[in-house]
Amino acid sequence: MKSSKNVTVVGAGSWGTALAMVLADNGLEVRLWGHKKEQIDEINSRHTNQKYLKDIELPQSIIGYHDLGESLDGVDTIILAVPTKAIRGVLGQIQEVQRAPLTVVHVSKGIEPDSLLRISELIEDEMAPENLHTVVVLSGPSHAEEVSLRHPTTVTVSSKDMKAAEEVQDLFMNMNFRVYTNPDLLGVEIGGALKNIIALAAGITDGLGYGDNAKAALITRGLAEIARLGTKMGANPLTFSGLTGIGDLIVTCTSVHSRNWRAGNMLGKGHNLDEVLANMGMVVEGVRTTKAAHQLAEKYEVNMPITDALYDVLFNKVEAKEAVDHLMGRVKTNEMEDLVNILGERLT
Amino acid sequence: MKSSKNVTVVGAGSWGTALAMVLADNGLEVRLWGHKKEQIDEINSRHTNQKYLKDIELPQSIIGYHDLGESLDGVDTIILAVPTKAIRGVLGQIQEVQRAPLTVVHVSKGIEPDSLLRISELIEDEMAPENLHTVVVLSGPSHAEEVSLRHPTTVTVSSKDMKAAEEVQDLFMNMNFRVYTNPDLLGVEIGGALKNIIALAAGITDGLGYGDNAKAALITRGLAEIARLGTKMGANPLTFSGLTGIGDLIVTCTSVHSRNWRAGNMLGKGHNLDEVLANMGMVVEGVRTTKAAHQLAEKYEVNMPITDALYDVLFNKVEAKEAVDHLMGRVKTNEMEDLVNILGERLT
Repeated sequence: MKSSKNVTVVGAGSWGTALAMVLADNGLEVRLWGHKKEQIDEINSRHTNQKYLKDIELPQSIIGYHDLGESLDGVDTIILAVPTKAIRGVLGQIQEVQRAPLTVVHVSKGIEPDSLLRISELIEDEMAPENLHTVVVLSGPSHAEEVSLRHPTTVTVSSKDMKAAEEVQDLFMNMNFRVYTNPDLLGVEIGGALKNIIALAAGITDGLGYGDNAKAALITRGLAEIARLGTKMGANPLTFSGLTGIGDLIVTCTSVHSRNWRAGNMLGKGHNLDEVLANMGMVVEGVRTTKAAHQLAEKYEVNMPITDALYDVLFNKVEAKEAVDHLMGRVKTNEMEDLVNILGERLT
Repeated sequence: MKSSKNVTVVGAGSWGTALAMVLADNGLEVRLWGHKKEQIDEINSRHTNQKYLKDIELPQSIIGYHDLGESLDGVDTIILAVPTKAIRGVLGQIQEVQRAPLTVVHVSKGIEPDSLLRISELIEDEMAPENLHTVVVLSGPSHAEEVSLRHPTTVTVSSKDMKAAEEVQDLFMNMNFRVYTNPDLLGVEIGGALKNIIALAAGITDGLGYGDNAKAALITRGLAEIARLGTKMGANPLTFSGLTGIGDLIVTCTSVHSRNWRAGNMLGKGHNLDEVLANMGMVVEGVRTTKAAHQLAEKYEVNMPITDALYDVLFNKVEAKEAVDHLMGRVKTNEMEDLVNILGERLT
C-alpha cells in the first residue's frame, strides 16, 4: 500500500514521532520536522528519537527535517503535533514558508484561556484563509509509547469537512491503529480538552488517600459535567460516551504517567500550586484548561461543580480535602436531571 | 438521627457487612443474618468479620443473627446481599418464615441464563405477590473494603416504585456514602450485570500484554454495546453514562481485585476456561453473564462484537489473541451510528 502522498509531521515529540511511525507503517514517506538540530540528526542517522521514545527503532521512511520550508515543499497535509501553547507561534512560521494551502491535522488538546477558542478555531483564527484548506482533529485514548510498540489503539477524527476527515482516516488506519470518524467536531475537541481537569482532580483524590470508589465517582460525575457544558455549547451528548470522551478520560485518569494526574496528586498531598508547578518544571495543561472551563461555565451558565472546586483549590487557596468533602456533601438526587434539562432547553 | 426502623441485611459477606456499617453509622440498629454460626458469633462477641472485612471494627449496633425467622421479626425492609446464584434458594427460605410483606433491596449483579431475567424480575418471579411489597436495586462503583473504611463512595438506587427508592436513599445517605436516584430500573440492572463481561475482556487484553490504549478502547466500545442492547430493551441511554454504567465499569476493569478481571487475565495468558475456573475455585459471574448476554443479543437482534468474541473464547475454544485481533480488525467507520439507529427505531 505504497502511497506517493507527502505528509509532514510538525513536531518531533513523542506523539508526533509515534504518529509518523503509523504513517510509515502504511507505506508513506513521512517528513518529521523538529527545531532541534541534534534530534533531527539522530532521527536521520540512527533512526531513533531516544529522548521521546526510548529504545524504539524508527522506520527508515521517516525523514527528519530541520528546515521548515524544505519539509513543506510539495506537501498539502500536515500533522500539527506541538504543545498547545506553541501552536500560534509555529503557525506563524509555517505561513512564512508554505507555498500551497494546507490541510492541518491537529492532535493537541486544550482551550485558549480568555479567547475561549478550541484548537481548530485557534488555527482558523491564526491562519490566513488562503493558507488553510481545512482543519481535522485526531483525538482519543492513546499513549504515544504504546502506539510506537504497535499495541492496539483506537482514535477518532473529526472536521467540518468530513471528506477531509475520511482522507485522514485512510492515511492512518491499519490493523493496530483503528480510526473512527465522528462528525461532531465541537464535542470531540471539548471532550479532549476538559478531560485534563478531571485528571487533575483524580490525582487529588488519590493524593488524599481516597480509593477507587471515589475516583470512579469523580470520573463519572466529571464526564457528566463535561457533557453538560458541551451539550449546551451544541455538541452531541453521545460524543462524550465515545473514545474522545470517556475513553480518553479513562486513560488519563488511571495512568500515573499523566502529567495532570501527577500535579493533582501533589496538590492532594498538601502542596500548593506554585510548589507543584515549580516541581513539574513544565506546562500542566489542566491548570490552563481549568481557568478556561471556569470561564466557559460562566458564559454558558452551566453547573460544573468539579471544575469550580478545582478552580478554588488552584486559584483561591482552598484546601484540597475541604473541596472534595464539599463536593461529596452536595445535595443532588437525580443522576441526570441537568443533562436532560439542557437537552430539553435545546429542543424548545 | 436515630431511627426506630428495623432493617435486616441478608448475607454477611463483605458487601452485606459494609452496607450494614453504613446503616449503623446512620443510627439504625441493624440485623445482619448469615448462615455460618461461628461467623455470627464473631460479629456479636468481637464485632469483627475477619474473613470478609479484615481488621475492620464493626459498630456495636450491628447485631448478628443465625436464625432467619428471628432476624425478620418486625422487619419490613431487607437488604438482599447474597450471590446471584443463591438468590432463589434464599428467597424460598425467607418466604417460609416471613410474617409481613417485604421491601427487598437487592445489591446483586447478573442476568439469569436461559430465563434471561434481571435480578428484580427474578425476585418477582420467585416471591408470592403477598410476600413482596416492592423491589429496589442499589448499584454503583463500590468496593466493599473502601466503604468499610468510610472512603467517599457514590451509588444509585432505582425501582418501579420511586417512593420506595427514595426511602432507601434516605436510609443509606450520609457524608461518605452518597446515594442518587434514577428511575430507569432496567438500565441500572443491565449496566451492573453486563460490566462483568467487559471486565473479563479487559483482563484478557492485560493478559495478552496489551496496554492502556487497548483497555480504554475496550471499555469505551464495551459501554457502547451495553448501551445498544439496553436501549433496544427500553432503557434510557444516558443511564449507561452514569454511576451504574461507566462508573461501575471503570472500577471493575481497572482493579486487579476483580474476580472477573483475574479470570480474564488467565485466559489472556493462554489458559482455557476449565483451568481458570478450577484455579479460581469460585463463581466467576462474568462467565454466566456472557452466556446470558449472548442470548439477549440474539433475542433483541443487537450487534455485540465484544460479547460475541468473549463467548467464542469461553465456549468455542477460540484463542484469546485471535479473538482480540479480529475485534480490532473490524471495519467500522462511525463511532455511534448503531446507537443512533436504535434510538431512531424506537422513536418511529
